[in-house]
Amino acid sequence: MRLAELSARGGVPTATIKFYLREKLLPPGERISATQAAYGEEHLRRLRLVRALIQVGGMPVAAARDVLAAVDDDTLDQHTRLGVATWALPDSGSGTESEPGDAAAEAAQRVVTALLERLGWQYADDSSPAYRTLVRAVATLTRLGYDCDLPHLARYAHAAADVATTDLDLLEGYQDPTRQIEAGVALTVLYEPVLLSLRRLAQAEESARRFGAPHEQED
Amino acid sequence: MRLAELSARGGVPTATIKFYLREKLLPPGERISATQAAYGEEHLRRLRLVRALIQVGGMPVAAARDVLAAVDDDTLDQHTRLGVATWALPDSGSGTESEPGDAAAEAAQRVVTALLERLGWQYADDSSPAYRTLVRAVATLTRLGYDCDLPHLARYAHAAADVATTDLDLLEGYQDPTRQIEAGVALTVLYEPVLLSLRRLAQAEESARRFGAPHEQED
Repeated sequence: MRLAELSARGGVPTATIKFYLREKLLPPGERISATQAAYGEEHLRRLRLVRALIQVGGMPVAAARDVLAAVDDDTLDQHTRLGVATWALPDSGSGTESEPGDAAAEAAQRVVTALLERLGWQYADDSSPAYRTLVRAVATLTRLGYDCDLPHLARYAHAAADVATTDLDLLEGYQDPTRQIEAGVALTVLYEPVLLSLRRLAQAEESARRFGAPHEQED
Repeated sequence: MRLAELSARGGVPTATIKFYLREKLLPPGERISATQAAYGEEHLRRLRLVRALIQVGGMPVAAARDVLAAVDDDTLDQHTRLGVATWALPDSGSGTESEPGDAAAEAAQRVVTALLERLGWQYADDSSPAYRTLVRAVATLTRLGYDCDLPHLARYAHAAADVATTDLDLLEGYQDPTRQIEAGVALTVLYEPVLLSLRRLAQAEESARRFGAPHEQED
């Protein structure tokens, strides 16, 4: 397909596609004349992934390039490749404060270590963004005087494990190894608002069950 | 306690506390002289909540004031009060695009309606921020060509319901109705990064299980 069709099908203006090509976020098309190139389905797929990372996930171009380099690195085994690709993803939790070295940070470190031991999780790299976000978030809870003990965290972790199983099922729906990693990256980003909004809707149900809703909904 | 102690215990500079007092995010202290006021534990608690909303959750002052007005409105029943207070919270999912009226948005609306029916969730107000975020996120997935069908969404929703049960258990750990709502609001915001980071760590475990990790970790 020509650039115009790629733009229409991908929902991205041609100027933006040219920018992505210059920034090497998209591989070049097949040159068919001095001024024209042809693009395939793999360009469309990659364009949608770039859009997920940059427009939806809000990633800087350089960070998106790191993610894509891992996606394309087929010398890595699938586990490592997925890990490296998702490592570079933006950290979409609420902003958390970092005050390393205080009592709350140390307590958070202890409870997270105990949690991972209890769960038997062995692949949580303590230098990964997710690990550090978790410790920071637990430290913030502690600092603000809210409970964040092992039993509650473990319940959260079990729910997160159910979500991760669903995620990997979705990913294994793709045959091609590169497409699996592309999907893994995109779905990690795109399903975050799904999870957070479902949690809020579920809270409303649970609140109605416990406190009693005031009256039947009339509309 | 005096302002200096409130500042030290709350971890918030005195200038910031004075700003919160002027903006009526904190109730005034008890005046003990022309230039001094005394503050109680309820000020400390409220200060921590304001910090959770503004510093951690990144909320604008006006939005935080709306949340606090609902927290303080003890004429409401607990279910409505929690709903109104969390309604105004920031929407911490990844940025999602809004293109109402297109085929993806309509398909997303249909699948979300079917999901809520299947789950029997009755309190999901379709004008709530969480509902609209969910529809937008599903539309974005559809638009980018990724699966977002009812069975996968239902699995996500069941995990979200487990999380919500944990959340309401935490909240019911507080006796006083106002403290329950304060905790509900703070924990909704502060546990979002906990949930998202645990999901990423769980993905690494699940990925190792399915793809096989390359070798034992050596460090």
